[in-house]
Amino acid sequence: MKSITELTQKRPALAWLLFFATIAVVFLLGLLASSIIERRAEALFVNTPKTVLRDGEVRNEKWGENYPREFQSYYGTADTSFRSKHGGNAMVDMLEEVPEMVVLWAGYLFSRDYNQGRGHYYAIEDIYNSLRTGAPMSGDAGPQPTTCWACKSPDVPRMMKEEGITQYHSGMWARLGSEIVNPIGCADCHNASTANLQISRPALIEAFQRQGKDVTSASYQEMRSLVCAQCHVEYYFNKKVAEGANYLTFPWDKGMTVEEMEKYYDEIEFSDWTHALSRAPMLKAQHPDYEVAQFGIHAQRGVACADCHMPYQSEGGVKYTNHKMQSPLNNVAASCQVCHREETATLVQNVYDRQDKILEARGELEKALVRTHVEAKKAWELGATEEQMKDILKGIRRAQWRWDYVAASHGGSFHAPVECGRIVTAGLNIAQETRLKLARLLSSLGFNGEIPYPDISTKAKAQEFIGLDMKKFREEKALFLKEVIPVWKAAAAERESSWN
Amino acid sequence: MKSITELTQKRPALAWLLFFATIAVVFLLGLLASSIIERRAEALFVNTPKTVLRDGEVRNEKWGENYPREFQSYYGTADTSFRSKHGGNAMVDMLEEVPEMVVLWAGYLFSRDYNQGRGHYYAIEDIYNSLRTGAPMSGDAGPQPTTCWACKSPDVPRMMKEEGITQYHSGMWARLGSEIVNPIGCADCHNASTANLQISRPALIEAFQRQGKDVTSASYQEMRSLVCAQCHVEYYFNKKVAEGANYLTFPWDKGMTVEEMEKYYDEIEFSDWTHALSRAPMLKAQHPDYEVAQFGIHAQRGVACADCHMPYQSEGGVKYTNHKMQSPLNNVAASCQVCHREETATLVQNVYDRQDKILEARGELEKALVRTHVEAKKAWELGATEEQMKDILKGIRRAQWRWDYVAASHGGSFHAPVECGRIVTAGLNIAQETRLKLARLLSSLGFNGEIPYPDISTKAKAQEFIGLDMKKFREEKALFLKEVIPVWKAAAAERESSWN
Repeated sequence: MKSITELTQKRPALAWLLFFATIAVVFLLGLLASSIIERRAEALFVNTPKTVLRDGEVRNEKWGENYPREFQSYYGTADTSFRSKHGGNAMVDMLEEVPEMVVLWAGYLFSRDYNQGRGHYYAIEDIYNSLRTGAPMSGDAGPQPTTCWACKSPDVPRMMKEEGITQYHSGMWARLGSEIVNPIGCADCHNASTANLQISRPALIEAFQRQGKDVTSASYQEMRSLVCAQCHVEYYFNKKVAEGANYLTFPWDKGMTVEEMEKYYDEIEFSDWTHALSRAPMLKAQHPDYEVAQFGIHAQRGVACADCHMPYQSEGGVKYTNHKMQSPLNNVAASCQVCHREETATLVQNVYDRQDKILEARGELEKALVRTHVEAKKAWELGATEEQMKDILKGIRRAQWRWDYVAASHGGSFHAPVECGRIVTAGLNIAQETRLKLARLLSSLGFNGEIPYPDISTKAKAQEFIGLDMKKFREEKALFLKEVIPVWKAAAAERESSWN
Repeated sequence: MKSITELTQKRPALAWLLFFATIAVVFLLGLLASSIIERRAEALFVNTPKTVLRDGEVRNEKWGENYPREFQSYYGTADTSFRSKHGGNAMVDMLEEVPEMVVLWAGYLFSRDYNQGRGHYYAIEDIYNSLRTGAPMSGDAGPQPTTCWACKSPDVPRMMKEEGITQYHSGMWARLGSEIVNPIGCADCHNASTANLQISRPALIEAFQRQGKDVTSASYQEMRSLVCAQCHVEYYFNKKVAEGANYLTFPWDKGMTVEEMEKYYDEIEFSDWTHALSRAPMLKAQHPDYEVAQFGIHAQRGVACADCHMPYQSEGGVKYTNHKMQSPLNNVAASCQVCHREETATLVQNVYDRQDKILEARGELEKALVRTHVEAKKAWELGATEEQMKDILKGIRRAQWRWDYVAASHGGSFHAPVECGRIVTAGLNIAQETRLKLARLLSSLGFNGEIPYPDISTKAKAQEFIGLDMKKFREEKALFLKEVIPVWKAAAAERESSWN
């Protein structure tokens, strides 16, 4: 065959066709390349840190200089405008929603104040305001230990580093008031020099170690849940590590089911408090969000917390993680709909359906538990002996542990509805079996009837029923907020101003 | 530009290239066309009926001449080799598995015999053998009415057409023994002349009509569930339609939840039987498979019964529906894995996880219900009055209705685990509240203690506990099978031999 030169010499029209076609193709390729280069350049630009961060930098604003998109979206946690049927990001007074909780926690600080929390942005402000932290006018005043700061701030790992872990866990909450001031943020989950995900809290690392596992071998996808599991878990204050220390510990050594954790607590004869009405040795569930989620289909299919609560997002040429941690129901398009091709209204309804059904059972359990406490109180009043009450008090402890485990688990009735249903049902059965024992005991003590359900239709009535002087607590808190907090803040500002 | 003739005259090599390329392309196109035509021809061949079927042809073998693949797979329902953790296609003696059931059904024929059924192929044989149909030695002998045939055979719509629907529902089961002989099959769901899906049973059509809906406007996909819903539903025998008739009726008028159906039954003051121990007016749930499934995510996403239980299959050029109705766990590849890209073992475990959790609660409810019956019996013995027992008996009815609704619903704890959990929990709570009332009543009657749980660890022990003479029932059944069944079969064979 002849060369193309020879061919086009003989066919000038063919030559022109080839010429213009080539020009057109090259022009289009140029456009494409330009678009690719531009997007890469943008990504390169935004992903190159401009500020050198201090090791474990606690100030979220400093991180924000390097990671503006993440920081800007993190500030979204200040948003309190979303209210779903059973959640949202607004502060909700749970004791008002479910006054039974006041009675269930009688003798424990939760009976004074328990809110659906706001976003991470408010972590410090809300722990100041909570009536559960009381009004400590000096660094060694109660009621809470330093451990209560543990999940509130990146200043916590900073202090652990400064003081040592056991020392950090010693003393009262007010002791660290001027040290712990930055709300939950960047350094809680990220390494300041590499920005990689890392575990900043020892409790998770130690829980893994005691089970013979190494948390540093976790995959990136696992880390996108494990950084959350530093705090969104069940834990307790271990007093056996050192004198005066309340060492934050996960009760995972026997496994992650509600029964295995109960067995752990039973074996070490742990109780959070003694109930004011029934005198039962109670357990308070914290928020076993991570544990419960592991029993749900999303976790079982490898979906991480961040996949739904902090979905990936694109802006220009940059893909980043949306750091406005929130209910996916407020961001269905970027979370659920990445996998589920259904209308938003349908998906939201699917969530509500699960939550409603579990809440129906939980509500019954709450009422049964109130009755166990009231009936046990009556039995004591009629002269029941410790021996007669032993099994009954154990039943109350076991039933309420199951209730609290589900009630305290954020989103649990969606994350793992069948497991939550199982737990609530077991709790309800134990509560009712306990009431049968109480009925027979009461009858043998001369009372054979039904004790009327107390009028606890509002939080105020319930708090009055258990004998709380709320006015006093509120006045003390107001004084604390007025006099102590400004001092803490000023000291912190001065310290931070000395940093670069 | 010059013509291609001119061009190739000057370039002979180009001409040859074009020539051979054209030959190659045409040859490949020919192969493709041949393959398409061949597959179409096969589909055309197999989908063209060869035999003209009688209107409503009841003999499955006759349909098999026209639809060999469907018929061959239908014969697969004769398979009894698969046993999953909580199901399968083998006959399983449920009273042996859960002897509590014997006590729960005391005074009702289910306490004699209740099996996990085998496939459709055995519908007639198994109703002959069941101790629930007794041993009627003549056409007007009991214990069961003609209605009990309703879901067993395509001979049923044939007889309804011959006798009229109300007349069909009149008289005793044995009356139609020689008429109803073909097991559940083609004509139950298909039109004989068009092979289209159609509803053959009036109960479903009438239930739709009473709700102002028209079942004939259902889509094809809906029909792939509704033909199943002719039988796999909750129903009762309505005695108010005509004197002596037990008219099969769906209790759907108020809605499809367990509570709405209960309200329906309560309003018409219906009960299936009076419990032999507690004297409670009981409801027996049938098998509300369709209703329960509507609360599950599969049905809510538009998945039909047939999509999983009778998945599409390809054979050569023919796509057809596999008529071996069975647990999808025995055919994960063609059912679950069409949508879920997970390993079989994972998917099966996901099913078991749901079932196990619901069964855990159901087991607790069974034990609580046994106790209610035993405790109520004790109360009667101690001289309780009707007035004192009224609420208690209502509680027993309500609690057991919820238990039975879930226990009787095939696959319900997978189809809609959260709904089943909700129902069982409500049942358990009602049962335990009823036991509290019983405890107080018993105490007021002079008995303040726990009645020991009866030894019902086997079916035989449980049947002895409620006073059944099983030996007698078995002997009577043996005589019936030996003397009556051959007569029925001979009469049927003679009648059918006169058909073309």
